Amino acid sequence: MLPITIAGIGHYLPSRVVTSNELEAAFGLEPGWIERVTGIRERRYVNDETTVGMAVIAAQRAISAAGCSVGDIDLIIGASSAPQQVIPCTAAFVQRALGAPDGHSACFDVNATCISFLVALQQAAHLIGAGAYRTALIFSSEIGTRSRSTSEPESAVLFGDAAAAAIITRTPANAASAIWGSKMVTFSSGAELTQLVGGGTLHHPNDPRTTPDMNEFQMRGPAVFRMAARTLGPFLDSFFDDLGWDRRDIDLLVPHQASSHGVGLLTARLGFTPAQMYLNLAERGNCIAASIPLALSEALAQKRARRGDRLLLLGTGAGMSICAVGLTY
Amino acid sequence: MLPITIAGIGHYLPSRVVTSNELEAAFGLEPGWIERVTGIRERRYVNDETTVGMAVIAAQRAISAAGCSVGDIDLIIGASSAPQQVIPCTAAFVQRALGAPDGHSACFDVNATCISFLVALQQAAHLIGAGAYRTALIFSSEIGTRSRSTSEPESAVLFGDAAAAAIITRTPANAASAIWGSKMVTFSSGAELTQLVGGGTLHHPNDPRTTPDMNEFQMRGPAVFRMAARTLGPFLDSFFDDLGWDRRDIDLLVPHQASSHGVGLLTARLGFTPAQMYLNLAERGNCIAASIPLALSEALAQKRARRGDRLLLLGTGAGMSICAVGLTY
Repeated sequence: MLPITIAGIGHYLPSRVVTSNELEAAFGLEPGWIERVTGIRERRYVNDETTVGMAVIAAQRAISAAGCSVGDIDLIIGASSAPQQVIPCTAAFVQRALGAPDGHSACFDVNATCISFLVALQQAAHLIGAGAYRTALIFSSEIGTRSRSTSEPESAVLFGDAAAAAIITRTPANAASAIWGSKMVTFSSGAELTQLVGGGTLHHPNDPRTTPDMNEFQMRGPAVFRMAARTLGPFLDSFFDDLGWDRRDIDLLVPHQASSHGVGLLTARLGFTPAQMYLNLAERGNCIAASIPLALSEALAQKRARRGDRLLLLGTGAGMSICAVGLTY
Repeated sequence: MLPITIAGIGHYLPSRVVTSNELEAAFGLEPGWIERVTGIRERRYVNDETTVGMAVIAAQRAISAAGCSVGDIDLIIGASSAPQQVIPCTAAFVQRALGAPDGHSACFDVNATCISFLVALQQAAHLIGAGAYRTALIFSSEIGTRSRSTSEPESAVLFGDAAAAAIITRTPANAASAIWGSKMVTFSSGAELTQLVGGGTLHHPNDPRTTPDMNEFQMRGPAVFRMAARTLGPFLDSFFDDLGWDRRDIDLLVPHQASSHGVGLLTARLGFTPAQMYLNLAERGNCIAASIPLALSEALAQKRARRGDRLLLLGTGAGMSICAVGLTY
């Protein structure tokens, strides 16, 4: 048990709403297909927002909710699937754009695609728990629409743009907040099921052999679903065994909002009830790493959970990886 | 103090040696200029090696040195400035290429450019110290030559390709190994001094406005040097104060091999002696995130340090960030 709390959380959504009907027209899909197959009715797309700009607004809201000041932050972790630019890390740009004091915080990025926020939360919890830092800002800011595939509408229509951020601190005296356990595993036999093959050393942007489709997100959706269906049950059994919790103990389950098939697994086969789950998939789409913290921020804004409740944050991501964090909010 | 040890370390160097004289001819520079200005006589360039392929050989050597098996690894952290591809993380591909069991380890990447290995070491130490994992593999594998600037020879000639990897575990009973302290700070006022502006959401590879130079590394070397010269002294004073160590206590200082000016600061102004320092800059160049673990691996292979010695790993990176880890090997 780590005496760590999500002291404040906030999010930012671009104002531009893009309906599934608009995308069906753009991609030449049958009207109604997107919502029927993916569960997504609409999602947000950026106008002229940047990764850093969205992260900063979400961070300011998280700081305000936590009742701390920007000068308190001594650790900034960028937890998005894509940086604003390759070098330096996005966290450094957020430090500056937030007006956080120069030289007062450590900045780095982590990348575990859709579950980056959970990986960063686990890291921040252990670093703060051990006294290495006091106040962490974690942000996930995604403009996944930049890497949508033009030839793969079934994945392209999933993505929405959004940012979310959280302030992580030691739990104040007399508060119940705690992180009880976190678990992550990677099944690299599924590494090619969800990928973006460009942007690195294999297909460098300046390599004349690199083609535009290499810089687009590709997903073998049915294969990802089958792999998740096969691995999530044993993963959850082991996670709950280690924690000594029962699935019924969870007051709110905030899953990565991947698709209606993905989140449907949790109630259809994995032992949770619809009443336990928070879903914003229909209005937000799949916001990649921002998905889980955005859903948590919206759920808390809607009073779906309160201090003292038991929360499970759970997601799968490219890799294929699964991560879960069990906490008392 | 964390009872954590670098149980084994290993590295991989491509066979292709590129001399500074060759690069002077290629870039139209005066013969002798590169070694005089940067301290680099030669460096390695990949032939057909990949980021993952180099990482795996370094990892196998680290595993062998640690006397463990690939099945013991339950955490794999990729700590390089560039991934092999954007999605999924490079760590997942290393899990698979190593033959590590599917679903047995957590895989993610961290990015803090040149000091990524130190950030990953700090994370692994705290995660293992708290019992979240037992055996971590950290690798840094760099093909920086892919992003060399064609118009900026003074930075282009610095880079060498290499990989290094380490196995991190809890210190065995009766051994003295420990991590005594680590410290990192970021001065984002220097964010533009060292950058690669492409490859992210700001200048996406498929954006028609993205130009090839945006996908190349750019550095304002003299400004980076001035910033490092101004910030490293107070950083080190604070680091040593927190640790209760004196600079003379350090048996071996392994700095990021950035340039002769950069490493020269450590002896000229920052209180260390040449005898304390391990340098491979002349033969390896700046291997970005692989620089520090490569230098440590080579220093240990040359018996420059032994178990029980006090080591300081220290580097600056884009951000601009500084990171130091003080440990008993």
